[in-house]
Amino acid sequence: MPHIAIPGQTPGIRGLMASKPASGRKLNELAQQLLRGDSPLSVGERELIAAYVSDLNRTRYCTGSHSAAAAHALGGDYELVDAVKKDPATAPIDERTRALLAIAAKVQGDARNVTEQDVAAARAAGADDEAIHDAVLIAAAFCMFNRYVDGLDAILPADPADYDEIGAALVARGYVATRD
Amino acid sequence: MPHIAIPGQTPGIRGLMASKPASGRKLNELAQQLLRGDSPLSVGERELIAAYVSDLNRTRYCTGSHSAAAAHALGGDYELVDAVKKDPATAPIDERTRALLAIAAKVQGDARNVTEQDVAAARAAGADDEAIHDAVLIAAAFCMFNRYVDGLDAILPADPADYDEIGAALVARGYVATRD
Repeated sequence: MPHIAIPGQTPGIRGLMASKPASGRKLNELAQQLLRGDSPLSVGERELIAAYVSDLNRTRYCTGSHSAAAAHALGGDYELVDAVKKDPATAPIDERTRALLAIAAKVQGDARNVTEQDVAAARAAGADDEAIHDAVLIAAAFCMFNRYVDGLDAILPADPADYDEIGAALVARGYVATRD
Repeated sequence: MPHIAIPGQTPGIRGLMASKPASGRKLNELAQQLLRGDSPLSVGERELIAAYVSDLNRTRYCTGSHSAAAAHALGGDYELVDAVKKDPATAPIDERTRALLAIAAKVQGDARNVTEQDVAAARAAGADDEAIHDAVLIAAAFCMFNRYVDGLDAILPADPADYDEIGAALVARGYVATRD
């Protein structure tokens, strides 16, 4: 049961944001910039980082919705998303994404552990400064979104199948629009 | 040494935000809302949560700047800020702040550990839904800001005394203005 009153009993982060729209708007605008704004990383790659970090944080709502968003952005490939969450080292992804997911995992734990070697490996696989910046910031941002959802014990969707619809909407309409 | 090029070698999160202004703006606007926008928590209480969480994450830049901001917002009381970072259970703060800092510490670790008892203790000390919401979201947000700074190995100020000036500016001008 959520720790605060949720308008309309809306599940997930959207219910929390509706409880204080002034901060909800800023969170949505940040998510829109990070996951849909200009970046050398595709929408699918960015949603994969979001799903992977949310899974490492064991945040069910965010893992479900961003896994679905990643799968939809990647042409419906849920198997790929599951393989990444199981082990990015063996998942069928390109080496740049693999190196950035390794950095994202360190950011999710203690971000001070990201080394020059980690960054050099990402560069060798084709990541530039902006790709490294965006991967670190997206991983860091999901350490916020996940804690917001878990710390207030957000409502879970009644049916796990709802995540597929949430993910499809995030890909079709983005973050600012879907909160209205 | 930072993991990406920093325009003008600007220290701290401001240097990182300058490397990608499109996301920097959204981060600053979020910080301004959370730490200066309408809230039942005072600016000093919110900066205390920011300093305390940054210290738990061992992020030197954010701990230094938000400790200074908290001290300035609390009339120059660095001793109080140090006492909170040492142990909120014994620091000379009111019971509502103490209960919210206990929740913030759980959010910093694994936010799923926030219990109904933690929230009931905060309510008994006078926290309403909005105060609980804001404390959780500020603690979560600093788990993002801290990881952004550490994950990219932001530049530290040349002189630790610079934090006092940074904190004073954050209290005088807020977050959106100080990035220009």
